[in-house]
Amino acid sequence: MINKKMEQLGKVRSVIRELFEYGKKRKAEIGEDKVFDFSLGNPSVPAPDCVNETIKELLDTQSPLDLHGYTSAQGDAGVRKAIADYLNENHGSAFTADSIYMTVGAAASLTISLNALCNEGDEVIAFAPFFPEYRVFTEGAGATFKALPPTEDFQIDPVALSAAINKNTKAVILNSPNNPSGVVITEAGVKALTDVLKEKSAEYGKPIYLITDEPYRELVYGDVFVPFLTNYYDNTLVCYSFSKSLSIPGERIGYIAVNPKMGNAGDVYAAVCGAGRALGYVCAPSIFQRVAAACLGQTADVSVYKHNRDLIYGALCEYGYTCVKPDGAFYLFVKAMEEDASAFCEKAKAKELLLVPADSFGCPGYVRISYCVSTKQIEDSLPAFKALAEEYNK
Amino acid sequence: MINKKMEQLGKVRSVIRELFEYGKKRKAEIGEDKVFDFSLGNPSVPAPDCVNETIKELLDTQSPLDLHGYTSAQGDAGVRKAIADYLNENHGSAFTADSIYMTVGAAASLTISLNALCNEGDEVIAFAPFFPEYRVFTEGAGATFKALPPTEDFQIDPVALSAAINKNTKAVILNSPNNPSGVVITEAGVKALTDVLKEKSAEYGKPIYLITDEPYRELVYGDVFVPFLTNYYDNTLVCYSFSKSLSIPGERIGYIAVNPKMGNAGDVYAAVCGAGRALGYVCAPSIFQRVAAACLGQTADVSVYKHNRDLIYGALCEYGYTCVKPDGAFYLFVKAMEEDASAFCEKAKAKELLLVPADSFGCPGYVRISYCVSTKQIEDSLPAFKALAEEYNK
Repeated sequence: MINKKMEQLGKVRSVIRELFEYGKKRKAEIGEDKVFDFSLGNPSVPAPDCVNETIKELLDTQSPLDLHGYTSAQGDAGVRKAIADYLNENHGSAFTADSIYMTVGAAASLTISLNALCNEGDEVIAFAPFFPEYRVFTEGAGATFKALPPTEDFQIDPVALSAAINKNTKAVILNSPNNPSGVVITEAGVKALTDVLKEKSAEYGKPIYLITDEPYRELVYGDVFVPFLTNYYDNTLVCYSFSKSLSIPGERIGYIAVNPKMGNAGDVYAAVCGAGRALGYVCAPSIFQRVAAACLGQTADVSVYKHNRDLIYGALCEYGYTCVKPDGAFYLFVKAMEEDASAFCEKAKAKELLLVPADSFGCPGYVRISYCVSTKQIEDSLPAFKALAEEYNK
Repeated sequence: MINKKMEQLGKVRSVIRELFEYGKKRKAEIGEDKVFDFSLGNPSVPAPDCVNETIKELLDTQSPLDLHGYTSAQGDAGVRKAIADYLNENHGSAFTADSIYMTVGAAASLTISLNALCNEGDEVIAFAPFFPEYRVFTEGAGATFKALPPTEDFQIDPVALSAAINKNTKAVILNSPNNPSGVVITEAGVKALTDVLKEKSAEYGKPIYLITDEPYRELVYGDVFVPFLTNYYDNTLVCYSFSKSLSIPGERIGYIAVNPKMGNAGDVYAAVCGAGRALGYVCAPSIFQRVAAACLGQTADVSVYKHNRDLIYGALCEYGYTCVKPDGAFYLFVKAMEEDASAFCEKAKAKELLLVPADSFGCPGYVRISYCVSTKQIEDSLPAFKALAEEYNK
């Protein structure tokens, strides 16, 4: 009677949410510091000062009618220009204000892009491991979601991609730095990927779009190069969110950048505006549009995440875990010590370690550890990780 | 290739937006105060002090991680409880925190409700005059939009409604106080409406849902009674936005209240959560959830709108216009002085009066005047209104 698919989506909690709720209950039972919750990808480093300072300055200097009023649907023109300029300066792109569409965060960037591009019967491809909501968003846009299995090193397999593309393929989603693996796709990987897309677009006589989901763009450690995709492939839509870089995930602010070099950029941008309208996005939150523009280039203190990464990666390797070394984001991807990652996570849970089995990320046999937690939690959890490994190795 | 429907939606500007853009251009040509722009429903009275005061207090007292972090998808539990309590106290409803789902404004409230309820082939009914995006939102949810013609007094025609309902009818949208007519549906009208819905629900053996779109609930003048629909009909979803009452339309904050008295309230609420998820709404902006809760019961200075209404309604009646007396919202609905409202609006434009023909609201022969402008603009525009009437009456 009502929409059963939506009802189901609302009722089925994600594995991550289940774990998080369990963690809250467990903490109440045995104490906050006795439960080592590594389930959520929720920034643990506060927003840089510019966020609150900008808000206060806006409140003190702008008229409330301007500050809290509607912006145009695609976002304030000055904000869009500032973002285009910033991207061009840092990545050599060629955006203008009219390439940028402000959104209510990454999920909105993705749903709007998918609804703008897809028709019934289209297919959208992503690489495992992938964020599970990609499936929900793709199906919501009337298209079919197709996941490619992970490679050994969680990079791109161009042969598998080439084989998966057919006449119905509308888009490929790329997420680098990756949630849940923390892997950054290399430039060679990006070139291999975009070569396939160019070849297949030519073969089918139509653009295959690349949607890059990159909320973790600035969260990289050391001298890792994160290729900017519009430099490699014209038919690219960049989906960004300030949630992780500025530690403001609840405020919902991000953007879509439509590469002006694509053949039909004006039409695609119009379809983005139309999809935003049809999905009920009137404009992105006005005050946070201004905050995002004012804080371009700033981030929360990423050195904390790097310290956490070094600590947990080093310790787990030492204990005998097989870990993927994360170059970015704030996730450590670890091989379960038995075939069934859920069973492994249950044994971890018995030691008060809350880890997420990666089955729903399309990557069975692995678990995700979110190290966006206090450094103390990591330090305190190490004996439990050691004991868990010993249990398997005895 | 890309989604042509979305491209079209993005390219076709609404009549209102066209007029507004014309107004900006015209003002640059002949001067700000020489063009009388009555096109936009953009609040002209600043937000009450509690809005900015609450933001500053939150910034000074809350940790940035809590303040700017994710809330649960349905909204912060304390905020939802505050809203439920407020509604129950003021309207005798029976909401709990788990009846309330925080949204990114009224458009999101509507798209989420429609996607939660509708399946392919369903029909949704609205009464003319209606907000034109209802059609876009309904079709976006895969259902068919059906508009009932306006009655003489812009109230409800229960006979026409009864005749329009069939086995495919999933929901009826009610917007009172109404955009664009300013009319408040009387209690008798509400009873007639809900009697039909009860009768037809029984006839077809399934609930026909009532979606009330009420961003103007508090914008009423004098002792006008605005019936609260859950008191008349169990299968009601209340869609609310703080945009107009608090003059914060750019910040995007509102809610859906699912009447717990409906038979399957838990399922409908789950479907609302699922639809929010599928459309890409992760949570409503965190800081403005708190602002909304802190400012419950407060409004921008409505007396300004009342003064504007009295001024323009009085003058236009005196000049010989046929006006619908608005009891709420900030719109005056006026009969065009010739059959073709667009032609009438062109003649008004020649006198620098920017009025919106109501054809796209499903009400040909009428024009909408948004009096959420400065009182001075209304005063200055009166000679032009007078001259326009004289042109027709000479």
